[in-house]
Amino acid sequence: MSHALIVGAGAGLSASLARLFARNNLRVTLAARDTAKLAALCKETGATAIATDATRPDAVAALFAAIEAPDIVVYNASARARGAFTALAPDAVAQAIAISAFGGFLVAQQALQRMVPKGEGAILFTGASASVKGYAQSAPFAMGKFALRGLAQSLAREFSPQGIHIAHFVIDGGIASATRQVPADKPDSLLDPDDIAATYWHVINQPRSAWTWEVELRPWVERF
Amino acid sequence: MSHALIVGAGAGLSASLARLFARNNLRVTLAARDTAKLAALCKETGATAIATDATRPDAVAALFAAIEAPDIVVYNASARARGAFTALAPDAVAQAIAISAFGGFLVAQQALQRMVPKGEGAILFTGASASVKGYAQSAPFAMGKFALRGLAQSLAREFSPQGIHIAHFVIDGGIASATRQVPADKPDSLLDPDDIAATYWHVINQPRSAWTWEVELRPWVERF
Amino acid sequence: MSHALIVGAGAGLSASLARLFARNNLRVTLAARDTAKLAALCKETGATAIATDATRPDAVAALFAAIEAPDIVVYNASARARGAFTALAPDAVAQAIAISAFGGFLVAQQALQRMVPKGEGAILFTGASASVKGYAQSAPFAMGKFALRGLAQSLAREFSPQGIHIAHFVIDGGIASATRQVPADKPDSLLDPDDIAATYWHVINQPRSAWTWEVELRPWVERF
Amino acid sequence: MSHALIVGAGAGLSASLARLFARNNLRVTLAARDTAKLAALCKETGATAIATDATRPDAVAALFAAIEAPDIVVYNASARARGAFTALAPDAVAQAIAISAFGGFLVAQQALQRMVPKGEGAILFTGASASVKGYAQSAPFAMGKFALRGLAQSLAREFSPQGIHIAHFVIDGGIASATRQVPADKPDSLLDPDDIAATYWHVINQPRSAWTWEVELRPWVERF
Repeated sequence: MSHALIVGAGAGLSASLARLFARNNLRVTLAARDTAKLAALCKETGATAIATDATRPDAVAALFAAIEAPDIVVYNASARARGAFTALAPDAVAQAIAISAFGGFLVAQQALQRMVPKGEGAILFTGASASVKGYAQSAPFAMGKFALRGLAQSLAREFSPQGIHIAHFVIDGGIASATRQVPADKPDSLLDPDDIAATYWHVINQPRSAWTWEVELRPWVERF
Repeated sequence: MSHALIVGAGAGLSASLARLFARNNLRVTLAARDTAKLAALCKETGATAIATDATRPDAVAALFAAIEAPDIVVYNASARARGAFTALAPDAVAQAIAISAFGGFLVAQQALQRMVPKGEGAILFTGASASVKGYAQSAPFAMGKFALRGLAQSLAREFSPQGIHIAHFVIDGGIASATRQVPADKPDSLLDPDDIAATYWHVINQPRSAWTWEVELRPWVERF
Repeated sequence: MSHALIVGAGAGLSASLARLFARNNLRVTLAARDTAKLAALCKETGATAIATDATRPDAVAALFAAIEAPDIVVYNASARARGAFTALAPDAVAQAIAISAFGGFLVAQQALQRMVPKGEGAILFTGASASVKGYAQSAPFAMGKFALRGLAQSLAREFSPQGIHIAHFVIDGGIASATRQVPADKPDSLLDPDDIAATYWHVINQPRSAWTWEVELRPWVERF
Repeated sequence: MSHALIVGAGAGLSASLARLFARNNLRVTLAARDTAKLAALCKETGATAIATDATRPDAVAALFAAIEAPDIVVYNASARARGAFTALAPDAVAQAIAISAFGGFLVAQQALQRMVPKGEGAILFTGASASVKGYAQSAPFAMGKFALRGLAQSLAREFSPQGIHIAHFVIDGGIASATRQVPADKPDSLLDPDDIAATYWHVINQPRSAWTWEVELRPWVERF
C-alpha cells in the first residue's frame, strides 16, 4: 500500500484518516468540492488536494486520471436535504442522493477499474445510523445512505473474491469536531474521529482470511 | 377509498392491481412512460392512463395536478443497469436509481401533500429481494431498491402517526407473465401477480390498530 | 383446512384467532398451561381446551397424540424474566427461554411430523419487537424471541418447498385487552387482537405462489 | 486489563486468543467441559484451565468464585443438534440451545456482577452466519445463535453506558484448524483463527468514544 484517496474530505474523519495514513507512510490525495479549507491539512500531512465534484462522471474520471492509482479509497461524502418532507425541493433531494450514493458509485467504479487487474486494494464506505434505519424527517438522507450500503454490499459480494476488500462502516453518533465539542459532563459521548480512523486502519490491514464487510461504531453512551 | 394511482404501470403486478381495484369499485389511474401498451387494460378496467416520466419533478407534479387526489398510491417503477460493474455507463446507473428510487420520492411527496391534510391514505412501495440484499453483478439495482426501502421506512415513521399507511413489499422471486410462464414441472414457482395483489389489498384494508409496514412475499419453492 | 391448534392460548390474540377460526368452520383446539380460564371461550367457539406444558417434550407429544392432526398451528406462548440483569434467577431465565422458544420447537416438530407426509399445513409463530431488537432490561425476552425467529426462518427455508407454510409475525406494540384498554385520547394506539387475527388469516389463505414468511404489525402511532 | 477468561475453550479460536492475550501480558483462564485437551496450550501460554459445564448455574458461579474477576470475557461455546428436523431428539436440542445461548447468559451475568461495580470490562460473544440467517436443516443451531445475538444486543444497550464493552462477532465461514486445513488451491478460504483473534483484540482495545457492537468476519472468497 502506498497511496490513499479520500473523497469527501473535510475537517473531521477525513482529516484523521489523512494524518493516520501519512504517519504510516502512505501518500494521500484528498478530493473535495472545496479544497481551500484543506490547505492546512495538506501542509501538515503532505497530502495533495484536488477539487472534485464527486457527483459528475467526468470529474471523477478526471480525478483518477490525474493521480496514481490508489491502493485505498475512502468514500466519505454525504448530504442531507432538510425541511418538511412535503416541502422539500426535488432538486435538493436529487443532489443529496447524488452526493451520498451516486458519487460512491462513480468513485468505486474508477477505483475498481484500476484495482481489479492488480487483484488488490481496499474501498471503504462511510455510513451512518441512517444506513440501516430510515428516520422520520430524514428521508433524503436515508435514501442516500441506504443506497450506498446496497452498493457496498453488492460490491463486497462481487469483488472480495477478486481480492478487493470492500467495507462499510455504520457510524452511529455525532462526531466530535472543533465546532461540536464533547460536553465536559458527558465524556466520550461523541465519536472521536481519530478513534474511528483507527478502526478503518485495522480493517484495511486485515488479512484476507478474515475480512470485515460491515462494522458498527458508536460512543459508549449512545442510544440505539 | 375511491381512487387509486399506480405508477410504473405495466402488464404484470400493475395490471393485477388495476383489475382488483376496479372490481372493488375504485377508479384507477395508471401512470407510465409508455401508455400505448396500456390500452387494453384501460378498456378492460375503465382505468385512465397518463404518460408520465416519474423521474421528472415537473412531470410528476403535472400528473397529480391532472387527476383527483388519490386515496391509494402504488409505486411499482424500477430499473436496472446491466453489464460488468467496471463498464457500466454512469448515465444508465443514474437513470436506474432515478426510476427505482427518486421517482418514488417524487410520487410520495405529491401524494402526501394531498393525503396529510385529510389524515388518510395509503402509499405502497414495491421492493424486491435486492431491497434487503445487495447481490453481485447488480449494484445499480441494489442502490435503487435499498434507497426506496429507506424512503419507505422513513415515511412510515413520519406519516403513519398522521394517518397515512405506508407499506413496503419485498417481492422475492420472479413474477409470472405472458412472457415468463410457470414451468409445468414446477407449479407456482413464480409469483402470480394476482396473488401479490391480494396481499396488497389486504394491507390497504388493515385497520390502523394493526398496520403492516413491511411484508415479504415469495413462491413456496424459492430459495432465500 | 379443518382443524386449528393454538398453543399458548389466553384471553388476547388466541381468543381472537379461536373466534375467527370457528367462524370459518374450523374445529379449534386450545392448548395452555391453565385451561380453567378458557372455559367461556370454549363454550363460545366450540373449541376444546387441553392442559399442556409446552416446554415438556412428553406433554407436547401427548397433546398431538390426543388430537386429530391440525392443519394450522399457531404458537403464541412467550415469557419474560423480570428484574435487574445481574439479579435474574437463572432458573427463571431458562424457563422464559423454554416457553418462548423451546416450546415452539417441540410444537413445530410434532406438527411437521404430521404435515410433511401430507405436503400441506401452516405453522405461524407470534413474535414481538423483541424478536428483531434486543432491548435493555429485557435480555431473557430477547433471547427467547430471537431464538423463535431463528427457528421460524430455518423452518421456512426447509419446509416451504415441502408445501408447509411457515410464517413469523413481528407484533410491535401493546395488545388491547380487558385489562389494558385503549386510551380514549389515543384511539387505536394498541393492537386490536381481532385486527392481528385478520392478518394471520390472510397469511394462512395465501396461495403458495406468494407466501409471506415475515410480516410486521404495529399501531399507526407506535414509534419504531 | 490483567485477566482474560475464555469460555468454551478448544483448539481453534480460543487457542489463538489465549496466545494473543498471553503475548500481551494478560493472565488467561480457560473454561471448558474437558480440560485434558488444553494441557499443551496451558503449558505454552501459562493459562489455567478449569473444568466447567457452562450450562449449569452452579458450575458457572463456582468458576467465577474460583478466579480473580476477569477484565475480558469471551464466550465461544456453541453446539448443534444434527439430523432431520422431524427426528431430532428434544433433549439434544435443549442441550444445544443451552450451550450456545443459556451458557452465554450465565457467564455474562457472573461477569457483569463483577464488572459493573468497577465500571469497566469487555464481554465478547462469538456468533456465526447462523446468528443472522436461519438455514434449512439447522434449526437448533439457529435458535442458539439467534438467542445469543439477542442477549448480546440487549446487554450492549444496557451495559455499554455503564462502561462495559459488549461485542458480537459474526464469523461467517469455516475456521482453519489442524483437522480442517486450507485447500492448497484456495488460499485463505478458511478463517485463520489468529486473524479472527486480531480483530477481537482490536475491538477490546477500542476507546469508548467509538465502540463496535457487531462486526462481521469472513474469508475473502466466502459466498454470503
